[in-house]
Amino acid sequence: MSFSPLIVRLMETLRCLPGVGPKSAQRMAMHLLERDREGALALAETLQAAMEGVGRCKRCRTLTETELCAICSSHTRDQRLLCVVETPADVLAIEQAGSYRGYYFVLMGHLSPIDGIGPNDIGAPELLRLLDEIEAEEVILATNPTVEGEATAHYLADQVRRRGLKVSRIAHGVPLGGELEYVDGGTLAHAFAGRREVTA
Amino acid sequence: MSFSPLIVRLMETLRCLPGVGPKSAQRMAMHLLERDREGALALAETLQAAMEGVGRCKRCRTLTETELCAICSSHTRDQRLLCVVETPADVLAIEQAGSYRGYYFVLMGHLSPIDGIGPNDIGAPELLRLLDEIEAEEVILATNPTVEGEATAHYLADQVRRRGLKVSRIAHGVPLGGELEYVDGGTLAHAFAGRREVTA
Repeated sequence: MSFSPLIVRLMETLRCLPGVGPKSAQRMAMHLLERDREGALALAETLQAAMEGVGRCKRCRTLTETELCAICSSHTRDQRLLCVVETPADVLAIEQAGSYRGYYFVLMGHLSPIDGIGPNDIGAPELLRLLDEIEAEEVILATNPTVEGEATAHYLADQVRRRGLKVSRIAHGVPLGGELEYVDGGTLAHAFAGRREVTA
Repeated sequence: MSFSPLIVRLMETLRCLPGVGPKSAQRMAMHLLERDREGALALAETLQAAMEGVGRCKRCRTLTETELCAICSSHTRDQRLLCVVETPADVLAIEQAGSYRGYYFVLMGHLSPIDGIGPNDIGAPELLRLLDEIEAEEVILATNPTVEGEATAHYLADQVRRRGLKVSRIAHGVPLGGELEYVDGGTLAHAFAGRREVTA
């Protein structure tokens, strides 16, 4: 004997959310059914709208529902700087730190040969094409200070340096092995100020 | 600068889920948008189907999408026993313990005068009407061993005893102050076996 089929299906589909196990899924399903059906319907509608409406910025590849994201549409940023990050959450963290005024390029991941993720999957060709188009003078590599993030930075540094541009890596003021999006603004600002040029 | 409006709305609506704060909501939104759009659309569809399709069993008041739940539809249960619980999750916990073979009545809450929840809100009239209809000989009160659960049991014991029926309370083998749905099956079975009749 268990819950009715529709309730079981609801508990199973809730597990597509990260960090939600069987007991949390049951708790969520019961909460929504017993006490917040309006919230659940709003969530259903927003999920659908977001999955259908949110795509990628055609310039920096971040998640957005418009053709160009708010940062790429802005004309008040410093065109000489392009910062490369792994995820849209990293862009938000850097913006909240408040010290960087250039543009971004979002890889949406990192190189991971073991998972079959190569340069094309992280948009390396688009990054190089963008560098040919715009007036950037320096590319700041702000991938995560993890093994994969370092490897990705190393690969991109090589590619960008061949275009004759300056390449820098944010300073390791951010703790090694951590995730960029969880670092506090002060540490991030420090990391941007202490960036070093990548030389052969 | 923050995420685009649709992404912000998605993060806000995800917070209707219990235990989900701003950081978890952001992590969930990013995970769904970047890696599991199919899962998110399935969740949207299931949420809507469940909120529209799941109602109450017209006999025991538990959550179900059919007129009568699976237990109330069964003809193999012990008609002499009716067990009163607070939530559908409690029914599942007792069923998984495996020692009880009677029917259930689900209060969908407990008495809580401070929140304006009185006997009508927990279905007390329906419970008494059901007792007049069926051949139950004993009502087992299995509300949570909390202050509100005890008060609810006390109130219902009074009402049921006036109908001339035997009333019992599950034994306090279950830890006091805990939630019934998280108790292991052995303890629950023990609590059922050790139930005591409630005398004036």
